[in-house]
Amino acid sequence: MSTIDVLNDESYMRLALDMASKAQGQTEINPVVGCVIVREGRIVGLGAHLRRGEGHAEVHALRMAGEQAEGATAYVTLEPCSHHGRTPPCCERLIEAKVARVVVACTDPNPQVAGRGLSRLREAGIAVEVGLLEEESLRMNEMFNKFIVTRMPFVTMKSAMTLDGKLAAKSGDSRYVSGPRAREMTHTLRHRHMGIMVGAETAIVDDPELSTRLSVPAVHPVRIVVDAKLRLPPEARMLREMIAPVIVLTVAGADPGKRAALKAAGAEVIDCGDGDRVDLALAMRKLGEREIGSILLEGGGKLNGAMLELGLIDKLLLFVAPKVIGGAGAPGVFQFEGFEKMAQAIPFRDVQVERIGADIFVSGYPEYGTGDRAGGAE
Amino acid sequence: MSTIDVLNDESYMRLALDMASKAQGQTEINPVVGCVIVREGRIVGLGAHLRRGEGHAEVHALRMAGEQAEGATAYVTLEPCSHHGRTPPCCERLIEAKVARVVVACTDPNPQVAGRGLSRLREAGIAVEVGLLEEESLRMNEMFNKFIVTRMPFVTMKSAMTLDGKLAAKSGDSRYVSGPRAREMTHTLRHRHMGIMVGAETAIVDDPELSTRLSVPAVHPVRIVVDAKLRLPPEARMLREMIAPVIVLTVAGADPGKRAALKAAGAEVIDCGDGDRVDLALAMRKLGEREIGSILLEGGGKLNGAMLELGLIDKLLLFVAPKVIGGAGAPGVFQFEGFEKMAQAIPFRDVQVERIGADIFVSGYPEYGTGDRAGGAE
Repeated sequence: MSTIDVLNDESYMRLALDMASKAQGQTEINPVVGCVIVREGRIVGLGAHLRRGEGHAEVHALRMAGEQAEGATAYVTLEPCSHHGRTPPCCERLIEAKVARVVVACTDPNPQVAGRGLSRLREAGIAVEVGLLEEESLRMNEMFNKFIVTRMPFVTMKSAMTLDGKLAAKSGDSRYVSGPRAREMTHTLRHRHMGIMVGAETAIVDDPELSTRLSVPAVHPVRIVVDAKLRLPPEARMLREMIAPVIVLTVAGADPGKRAALKAAGAEVIDCGDGDRVDLALAMRKLGEREIGSILLEGGGKLNGAMLELGLIDKLLLFVAPKVIGGAGAPGVFQFEGFEKMAQAIPFRDVQVERIGADIFVSGYPEYGTGDRAGGAE
Repeated sequence: MSTIDVLNDESYMRLALDMASKAQGQTEINPVVGCVIVREGRIVGLGAHLRRGEGHAEVHALRMAGEQAEGATAYVTLEPCSHHGRTPPCCERLIEAKVARVVVACTDPNPQVAGRGLSRLREAGIAVEVGLLEEESLRMNEMFNKFIVTRMPFVTMKSAMTLDGKLAAKSGDSRYVSGPRAREMTHTLRHRHMGIMVGAETAIVDDPELSTRLSVPAVHPVRIVVDAKLRLPPEARMLREMIAPVIVLTVAGADPGKRAALKAAGAEVIDCGDGDRVDLALAMRKLGEREIGSILLEGGGKLNGAMLELGLIDKLLLFVAPKVIGGAGAPGVFQFEGFEKMAQAIPFRDVQVERIGADIFVSGYPEYGTGDRAGGAE
């Protein structure tokens, strides 16, 4: 943005989006929402939804505006709610405050409620406009938007690989693939997700704490380990450092003694199927039931590959370090059976590429339903 | 460049560079050079070196300028030559034409001649300036600059891989990894190199013509096949389509019958060592002796890996398609023994990243002498 900002509807909506986006990671499964109230050329109220169960963005902004809300325009990044939930509906608050106009970025993604808030405002004689910076608002809440419709967590896979697609040297050594800036970003990503998921191998070999380490205090997500054989030792670092819950995903037939030991150490152990391997699709549903709406997948190549193969990865964030490590035995970023034909490869849409320090940062969304794969990977 | 170009020394030098760079690929082992002559605010002469054995850039430009060269400024992308080679030295031509000032981008990279041309001009009373857009000029002739000093070809490795580092599906199918724009660029790269090099496997499985297919006629480079066991069939397409020589690199112990058959089919067969595998470093020296100054390596993963391990790749051009193919048996972009520690990985310098259609295009130069590898890979 230049030093002189052109004041218009978009600039106020952008401010509302900025406030909301900074709160990502602190509202649990609730969407982040921002609200700006403007009357006669002045901002009179600012608000954002900051914590689940506490005030919505509109409530904070209306409180700040007080009587000045009358005749004002409210810019809200998401359709105001019309249902009585943990807080009274925002529509009624806006009507009571006598705002004249409400500008909304996008409707509620939940098809059961979408549009009701807007109808209620219009019935009360308020001018309503929808769709300003809609794409930005939808992207900001992409994790919530999946969860609210499917009750499955939005899974962001984050990985760092060499130019030849390896997560580590053949010896297993991986210090470090990417540079310090990429590693810093990982911790912000942890803050923004409700869970971090790794495979048992990573949990055992690296013995990570899986915490959010930033220069400011941050939220620690739930630590999730995929561990069919319950190999995670009860004395693992993440169980000694109980900064956030630990969930171990396993199978019905897992060893009862190991199960008891992990529970005694503080872990929640969840059965996902009765096969040899964790049923990952079932695992996602069970995590969704526990209102874990977003997961940062920091898996090894096998877990990454299995999740991709099942169509369970929603977004990929890949740091590519410009170096070659070699070695046929060096672990690759996605390990799975793979496709016979190049035309069957899983493509990514909305691919963005940028430089993060020396590394190349690639992001995108896998498209499971396209290409020549028979029936897709899902 | 904006529609209004600020006229200055740099803008004239840039024009000289533009003319030269378009001639890349048509001057064999000679550098490309451009020259612009300007007098009293007008361009009076333009020239570029277009073909080995024909006029240098300065000669063409001086001829166009005629008597107007007197008192003019000549912009030349490379130090004018001072030795009597295939053409008379350009220094003498500039002196005879009475130019007043010569602006040079960079000195001759050959340490045996560097600076002599400039001294000769200065002795004759001409004002000489050096270093304007030097980096651009050095990069433009990077292939020549290596060859002239080492007598080894500059090797550009070009490859197209999936996001998980694979050249093909596990079945071998690779149609197509990258998009049409990336494939078009490959043919321009062929035009710009004196040789294309592939492994025997690629030559047999794909049976390629290895020609330069563009919408305009283009130069076909020498086709080079690394083939220790002389598996290339004499009826291979590249031997049937003799648009350019075919060189087969093999070993002293290769089958005499197969050798005779390939020679009869028109191939030149060169022995590189008496081991089981082609001595690639020796091969590069032997190709250099034949004045093949630049090679586009379009290898499979094994040849890429072997060349990188030996420090023989000078530049990497990698098209990364944003899709995942999977499969442990799917061939990787660099197949070689690999390093034990991540800190030993071969880093790339001057990495550039851009989008080419849907693909991510990464270029860079391997740095063999750095990192923690004991003694480097060379």
